[in-house]
Amino acid sequence: MPSTATVLDLTADVTTLTAAVCDIESVSLGEAALTDAVEAALRDLPHLDVTRLGNTVVARTSLGRAERVVLAGHLDTVPLTSDPANLPTRRVEAPGGEVLWGRGTVDMKGGVAVVLRVAHEVRAPSRDVTLVLYEAEEIDSRFNGLLHVEQQRPELLTDADFAVLLEPTDGRVEGGCKGTLRAEVSTTGVAAHSARPWKGHNAIHDAGEVLARLTSYEPATVVVDGLEFREALGAVLISGGTATNVVPDRCTVTVNYRYAPSRSEAEAEAHVREVFTGFDVDVVDNAGGARPGLHLPAARAFVDALGLPVEAKQGWTDVARFSAIGVPAVNFGPGDPNLAHMDDEQCPVEQYARCEAALLRWLA
Amino acid sequence: MPSTATVLDLTADVTTLTAAVCDIESVSLGEAALTDAVEAALRDLPHLDVTRLGNTVVARTSLGRAERVVLAGHLDTVPLTSDPANLPTRRVEAPGGEVLWGRGTVDMKGGVAVVLRVAHEVRAPSRDVTLVLYEAEEIDSRFNGLLHVEQQRPELLTDADFAVLLEPTDGRVEGGCKGTLRAEVSTTGVAAHSARPWKGHNAIHDAGEVLARLTSYEPATVVVDGLEFREALGAVLISGGTATNVVPDRCTVTVNYRYAPSRSEAEAEAHVREVFTGFDVDVVDNAGGARPGLHLPAARAFVDALGLPVEAKQGWTDVARFSAIGVPAVNFGPGDPNLAHMDDEQCPVEQYARCEAALLRWLA
Repeated sequence: MPSTATVLDLTADVTTLTAAVCDIESVSLGEAALTDAVEAALRDLPHLDVTRLGNTVVARTSLGRAERVVLAGHLDTVPLTSDPANLPTRRVEAPGGEVLWGRGTVDMKGGVAVVLRVAHEVRAPSRDVTLVLYEAEEIDSRFNGLLHVEQQRPELLTDADFAVLLEPTDGRVEGGCKGTLRAEVSTTGVAAHSARPWKGHNAIHDAGEVLARLTSYEPATVVVDGLEFREALGAVLISGGTATNVVPDRCTVTVNYRYAPSRSEAEAEAHVREVFTGFDVDVVDNAGGARPGLHLPAARAFVDALGLPVEAKQGWTDVARFSAIGVPAVNFGPGDPNLAHMDDEQCPVEQYARCEAALLRWLA
Repeated sequence: MPSTATVLDLTADVTTLTAAVCDIESVSLGEAALTDAVEAALRDLPHLDVTRLGNTVVARTSLGRAERVVLAGHLDTVPLTSDPANLPTRRVEAPGGEVLWGRGTVDMKGGVAVVLRVAHEVRAPSRDVTLVLYEAEEIDSRFNGLLHVEQQRPELLTDADFAVLLEPTDGRVEGGCKGTLRAEVSTTGVAAHSARPWKGHNAIHDAGEVLARLTSYEPATVVVDGLEFREALGAVLISGGTATNVVPDRCTVTVNYRYAPSRSEAEAEAHVREVFTGFDVDVVDNAGGARPGLHLPAARAFVDALGLPVEAKQGWTDVARFSAIGVPAVNFGPGDPNLAHMDDEQCPVEQYARCEAALLRWLA
């Protein structure tokens, strides 16, 4: 059947391939064209068994190796909000060397291109590999393709010993991730006319104590599997009051607790409830972190092969989904995460090449 | 020209007249029918010169008396929100005596009926009278009929020595009113990802100090012209934050300062700026209060004639508009202000009769 779909050339250099992957626009829930191209390219490789689930592709070797490792990356990007749009990509000469500019160059189509290059170049890897290129990481987790594979085809993932998620880390290895809990801490007052406030009780004033506890809170730094995780507890939203002439009868502070992966979700919730003793606390979401697992053999081999420093990942990423199914995971990918989602998203091209080289070295 | 308009019978008793005024629905900006009826009734009285401005009617005697007093009331009501609607009015036997139930029975068509009864009954008052029945008091002040008369025909008002506004006061005399100032007190931070808050600065946490100052604020009680005005300063709204994973870079607390009429608007603003020294303070509105002026001869005569206790008015009312043009004013009218705007709005009918009797006694 004739097709006008773009063909991805996996023999191209990794920067050219990254540009080609970026130029197939794939904002969350619009990944079909890119998934088609990725699936077609991987099905051309005889050493891989390819499964497609929605707009997610899983490709596996079955060489009977002693270990199995996962390389994973998401196919979607955040929207193109700039005017003019930051696509198609441009290669730009910069003082520090050539950069690739445009949506996805950091988060995270360079990582996707590296996975595709590894698939093409390493036909007999030292470890069996499971490649996962998935949809809808940037939006509500119910759409997340990695979660769908875990729920619908868990056997495609759970036999792995270790996973590398190619999220941008500026070329460093970032192990595990912190958990994240959000809670609404509320106060209740009594409404009254603001000309006669003594007839009511001001809920916003009462929230001052919530903010005082946040200001005086001393977050812990917790060492887990040799990495330092720096905890944090802070307000992210506040709202209260109904009208400019009414004593407010309700005020809600939304707090975000980022906690070390050594704490369970239940322990994290108990801690937040203790901090806000005396207030109405409603936990609205809570996702545990991921231990880095760097003491495990597959992880040690990865770190040794790369010869790069290892740091703790402070933000929550999908490594926690691997951790939840018993697969230790690290983040390692090209691009400065501070430029992710920015209109001016861009990455030095040498980061793509270095990431590719490191993974080839590990798996060759 | 034949007309189907309702005719108001000013010879009826004040409760019957109040019910008739209420039953001509006149939600703000829909006062035309009621204004037509009021204008027609007043034009039938030869001792009054009647002026109409929009849906506001001003009727004046010109007897050359030593003093001139204003009786004023608004013709509009808040909307009929209950289902079934709280109109037409009903006369209901209650344990404490008969009540008139329905929209406007408190705020403030009983007062309007009293003004109309006084117009009919007192053809040669002891003081010249200016009767003002005006539109759109319950909504944004740019629609306020009293304000329009002040702006377009000030000579109809400024020759008065004293004004009585027939807003519901449960039959008491309430002198003057407090001023009201609203200000937005804001903090500015630095946005960052909430997993790495040490890279930002939390504006909501900083607002804790704003709330602490409000909580420890000790409002003054100020005696003005013999009446106690109880000041107040409190938060009415708070908002801050942009997303649940971002350190908030802005938080705004809207505060409302209710101040004694001895303070000018400028003094009130200076006070609020001093309380929130170190913060960004934006005054969004500021309306000065009204001194009760009870030491003035016309006011003394009014209080003496009524023989009722006098209290300070805590809320802001249109008496401040009279004060602003140099006419001292009090609130005095039938109905419990706590029932104003309620679906169950109602007033004991004997309050209408007592208010009418008091004003007839004063002006006869």
